[in-house]
Amino acid sequence: MSKAPEEQHPVKAFGWAAKDSSGLLSPFKFSRRATGDKDVRFKVLYCGICHADLHKTKNEWGSSKYPIVPGHEIVGEVTEVGNEVMKVKVGDKVGVGCVVGACHSCENCNNDLEIYCPQTIMTYNGIYHDGTITYGGFSDTMVANERYILRFPENIPLDASAPLLCAGITLYSPLKYYGLAEPGKHIGIVGLGGLGHVGVKFAKAFGAKVTVISTSTNKKDDALEHLGADSFLHSRDQEQMQAAQGTFDGILDTVSAVHSIMPLIGLLKSHGKLVMLGAPAEPLELPVFPLLMGRKMVAGSATGGLKETQEMIDFAAKHNITADIELIPTDYLNKAMERLAKGDVRYRFVIDIGNSLASTNH
Amino acid sequence: MSKAPEEQHPVKAFGWAAKDSSGLLSPFKFSRRATGDKDVRFKVLYCGICHADLHKTKNEWGSSKYPIVPGHEIVGEVTEVGNEVMKVKVGDKVGVGCVVGACHSCENCNNDLEIYCPQTIMTYNGIYHDGTITYGGFSDTMVANERYILRFPENIPLDASAPLLCAGITLYSPLKYYGLAEPGKHIGIVGLGGLGHVGVKFAKAFGAKVTVISTSTNKKDDALEHLGADSFLHSRDQEQMQAAQGTFDGILDTVSAVHSIMPLIGLLKSHGKLVMLGAPAEPLELPVFPLLMGRKMVAGSATGGLKETQEMIDFAAKHNITADIELIPTDYLNKAMERLAKGDVRYRFVIDIGNSLASTNH
Repeated sequence: MSKAPEEQHPVKAFGWAAKDSSGLLSPFKFSRRATGDKDVRFKVLYCGICHADLHKTKNEWGSSKYPIVPGHEIVGEVTEVGNEVMKVKVGDKVGVGCVVGACHSCENCNNDLEIYCPQTIMTYNGIYHDGTITYGGFSDTMVANERYILRFPENIPLDASAPLLCAGITLYSPLKYYGLAEPGKHIGIVGLGGLGHVGVKFAKAFGAKVTVISTSTNKKDDALEHLGADSFLHSRDQEQMQAAQGTFDGILDTVSAVHSIMPLIGLLKSHGKLVMLGAPAEPLELPVFPLLMGRKMVAGSATGGLKETQEMIDFAAKHNITADIELIPTDYLNKAMERLAKGDVRYRFVIDIGNSLASTNH
Repeated sequence: MSKAPEEQHPVKAFGWAAKDSSGLLSPFKFSRRATGDKDVRFKVLYCGICHADLHKTKNEWGSSKYPIVPGHEIVGEVTEVGNEVMKVKVGDKVGVGCVVGACHSCENCNNDLEIYCPQTIMTYNGIYHDGTITYGGFSDTMVANERYILRFPENIPLDASAPLLCAGITLYSPLKYYGLAEPGKHIGIVGLGGLGHVGVKFAKAFGAKVTVISTSTNKKDDALEHLGADSFLHSRDQEQMQAAQGTFDGILDTVSAVHSIMPLIGLLKSHGKLVMLGAPAEPLELPVFPLLMGRKMVAGSATGGLKETQEMIDFAAKHNITADIELIPTDYLNKAMERLAKGDVRYRFVIDIGNSLASTNH
């Protein structure tokens, strides 16, 4: 890219960006493309903060290209649509999640699984079809091909719905894909954070019996009384763990720290499924014998395709599912990132972009 | 058990047993129960030798109870049936595989998955309902509840069909359960031994494209020309491995030594399945990120339920699938075990019990 970010495209944009691996975020002027025939442009109102934003801004996955404007839980109101756009009109409430492009011709794209396309383009820190770097939702405006635009019903709280675009679909998709979205299933959710807490809500809405599995007991009351989990399993309590052996149909593991999955495999019934949603930096230890003896599986899942993401939003609207959020002004961003690194949030930070971003543009 | 093996039951039996963890096999007199109302008694004609027999006779899994009469690929001819037996009649060709009992009331038993019943009773070295130790097929007679009796069509070679009872169902079952038994799927078989070689045959019969994946090239010709595999992938050849990235729908891994599964996960397409069939003694390293990015899974599978085992035998008969065997006399047993430990067999030893056991009973 020879041109400066501010001059690459015709439409001025303003946001907050990390400039280096300190991860510190600060005001940043850049630009976005004009609204193409199939593009939807929208004013960003809210953007959730995902744990991935923390990894990316600090270059913890080694692939960061600075400056980075993070944010892939982006919601707002349509301000302009291209000539060929059928999906939405000006004024509609919309959002963009983790991806903004893919090849549209591979098997995964043809099956509405754009996220698994080998050429998927991430919403930020990706390289778009035109060769420019993509910028995320910590910004005033957003533009995307309509395939990547999600529609939100008018009657839902848009701020608390933003995290559905990553956290929501990340939990909804594996429950469906792995056959766990069924009444009567016993589902474990490991880790009660931004991902886990919406997992409890979706699994409950599907009619499952839900157990939160955690290394600490300090979220027990919240899990049972506020989030509606059926039970709480303290994974460091050997007696509790022993008693729960072989009782789970599926376990969604949201923990991204290196940890032992052996005890979790033991909790599964035969034919049970352990689905990893966090990405520990080091390989985990996999005991094979228990997999054989119970025909169990350890699997992974990323977010989800666009079609399923829309289905998830509609399901969430019907069942009144939103994230539990802490709405923050833009200038609280660095403090929020610090607190997120310590797990000090119940359960998702959402930036009030619409009401607080402009004033940081001096 | 206070009584000696010879006096526990009314029916005299003779076989070969390991008496201690040297694993050395020698003639052994014991006894079997009388034919109960639902029991089928048969004269053993052939018995395959499975790698598990080696582990068990040497107490490598730590659970061996001596003396051990191994053998769970047992075929022969019915000599007596109980009053309530419906399934077979005297003179029929039958077999017994890995299990001879289970609870018959749990979810797995109700779904014809006796092998996954928590109270499953193994064909040898298990404890039967009456409290006595079970003895396997390295013996002149066998008796089992009819639920555990498999029927063999008259027109098939019984000796080469014996290994279907463990090796056959161990490969057939995961191909079916994991959705890999479909025309056009690209299936990898890791390890071309007793398990792997029948895997190639079943996968081909299902219409898959089959690639044998091996650390050595010395079985390449056999794989391609004799067994009918479509291709051969030398897993130590980095160029070959790189070229095959992301091309497999499923991989059945029959290797029981500790090995790296990272390269195998890389060979899978998104949504691909790596199914472990061998049981390495130590945990393997599991990289989680590739599982997430491709919604892949690492799973396990044991043998299979009785209903499916019968289905597999009928399918094998229809498609002329048997094991490639080396038929040995009983007194070659210890030598065969030695050679098996070195992988020196193409591809399964089968003992010619009917023609050679009696003469070892001095």
